Amino acid sequence: MRISITGGGGFLGRRLADALLADNRVERILLADVVPIAAPPADSRVVPWVGDLCGAGAADAIVAGADVVFHLAAVLSGQAESEFDAGMRVNIDATRGLLDAARAGGRCPRFVFTSSLAVFGPPMPDVVTDDTAAHPQSSYGAQKAVGELLVADYSRRQFVDGRVLRLPTVCVRPGRPNAAASSFVSGIIREPLRGEEAVCPVPAGQELWLSSPLAAVANLAHAAFLPPEALGSRRIVNAPGITVSVAQMIAALGAVAGPQAAARVTFGENPSVRRIVSSWPARFDVGRAVALGFVRDSSFEALVRGFLDDEEAARRVRGA
Amino acid sequence: MRISITGGGGFLGRRLADALLADNRVERILLADVVPIAAPPADSRVVPWVGDLCGAGAADAIVAGADVVFHLAAVLSGQAESEFDAGMRVNIDATRGLLDAARAGGRCPRFVFTSSLAVFGPPMPDVVTDDTAAHPQSSYGAQKAVGELLVADYSRRQFVDGRVLRLPTVCVRPGRPNAAASSFVSGIIREPLRGEEAVCPVPAGQELWLSSPLAAVANLAHAAFLPPEALGSRRIVNAPGITVSVAQMIAALGAVAGPQAAARVTFGENPSVRRIVSSWPARFDVGRAVALGFVRDSSFEALVRGFLDDEEAARRVRGA
Repeated sequence: MRISITGGGGFLGRRLADALLADNRVERILLADVVPIAAPPADSRVVPWVGDLCGAGAADAIVAGADVVFHLAAVLSGQAESEFDAGMRVNIDATRGLLDAARAGGRCPRFVFTSSLAVFGPPMPDVVTDDTAAHPQSSYGAQKAVGELLVADYSRRQFVDGRVLRLPTVCVRPGRPNAAASSFVSGIIREPLRGEEAVCPVPAGQELWLSSPLAAVANLAHAAFLPPEALGSRRIVNAPGITVSVAQMIAALGAVAGPQAAARVTFGENPSVRRIVSSWPARFDVGRAVALGFVRDSSFEALVRGFLDDEEAARRVRGA
Repeated sequence: MRISITGGGGFLGRRLADALLADNRVERILLADVVPIAAPPADSRVVPWVGDLCGAGAADAIVAGADVVFHLAAVLSGQAESEFDAGMRVNIDATRGLLDAARAGGRCPRFVFTSSLAVFGPPMPDVVTDDTAAHPQSSYGAQKAVGELLVADYSRRQFVDGRVLRLPTVCVRPGRPNAAASSFVSGIIREPLRGEEAVCPVPAGQELWLSSPLAAVANLAHAAFLPPEALGSRRIVNAPGITVSVAQMIAALGAVAGPQAAARVTFGENPSVRRIVSSWPARFDVGRAVALGFVRDSSFEALVRGFLDDEEAARRVRGA
């Protein structure tokens, strides 16, 4: 099996590659990113590809020969709001370019597209289902919703065998803050665990719909391997997550790392972040996704412990 | 008030222009179409524009100086299914081109986009509401759903003051069959009234969601004149219609024109047309649209009589 991953140097893309390399059916993974990938997996099956997704020939190069394309590259929510054209170009045009390359190739590859809970916005029901109308309140959400429609129609036409996974907010992400409006969700856990202060830009009562990186990566791989008849004409799936308030997140941080860690989180509202984040749903009925075999974290505390385990493993690798 | 209408030579575009010319606040109507408009309205305020909507400078020429843009031009459902690229180009690219021209112009014009019940498809509830998820089962429906998302996000960003009207199937259309999968809906009334046979490609029990041209044009004009605060962030409206089965349509034809007219309709299933048409919803809760002042026909029989009155008026104009 030959696989291509866009955004392959990103946090999820890199982890997805690592997970897929454990599968000996995988013959090749093309890891595409706009910048050279720092320390790509040391595996002869990995082929790095560096370039602009919208550049001439890029989509063809990424899609050529691939049995599965994971399209993870995106301009994130904060940046898509501040740089409208960049979001339209990457989130819509690059997606369409990949789909058209697949169509031209004529091999109907599996095409896994990462979408987001940001396609939803008020007014919406208390519990979002797969039948809830997209009503995005950010350009990122609107662009992802456009991508979903394209993947679904290109699938119906059998140009690709598409699967759209609407991911919860993924946390805890390692490293530094990114351009997502949800960046703080990782920050208020990660920074206190390092002994640093963190400012939360939304109120303590704000609920979020969360997934660990582990569950998100497992669900992306699962989306690719589901037989098409399991999905039928319903190519868009709300991935499972857990509903957690900021207050519950901080309590779990305290339970794992002590009250002094929890005390490092302070509140300082950012109206722009609050507006976007409060437009996202936090409660879903994901019965269909669970029936299809998608997974979720057992608790937020388990998710924080998983993050600490990952950090420890990464330290050991660096030390080795 | 300066108005531009794309698809201005089309059936609805031309009727919309006639309706708007009756309003003395209207200073100019640019009627854009890909082919020269036969017999444009004899009114000095009408400016014909002929060209490809996706051609260089076209969107700027159409949007420049306009207070209201009605974007009616489209590749219809049958053609978008058989000519995928043509549909993508006109239904998505041209729409985005007009929105970008409006954004560049910086005047935030009103932008009325005609969408369609074809954005819906099974699985869907028995009664579709404004909160029902789009789940198109045709490329036309998918492309219209993409256009809706773009108009809504460009509105949220205040690049345009957009209004999306999802029209029912409009009938009875005069003239000849067109490239819509729903073309037969007019044909099975229009042809028998002329003394011709008509073949219905779907079963008699098939229900449809219908609007007369008169109601559709009135609702397009109403959409343009609604104050933005009436719509808020909910820019997409399911226009009112009436639910009528093919059997009820034929009965109404008989009531208006006699049993010999009704007997001219025969049945010969077309699987491709049946597949598309049976994926469309026929029952809607349009409480919000009605509260906003959108109108609907009183009955299908009244709709048929309205068509006959229009035909008679057209004959008188030609005879004058």
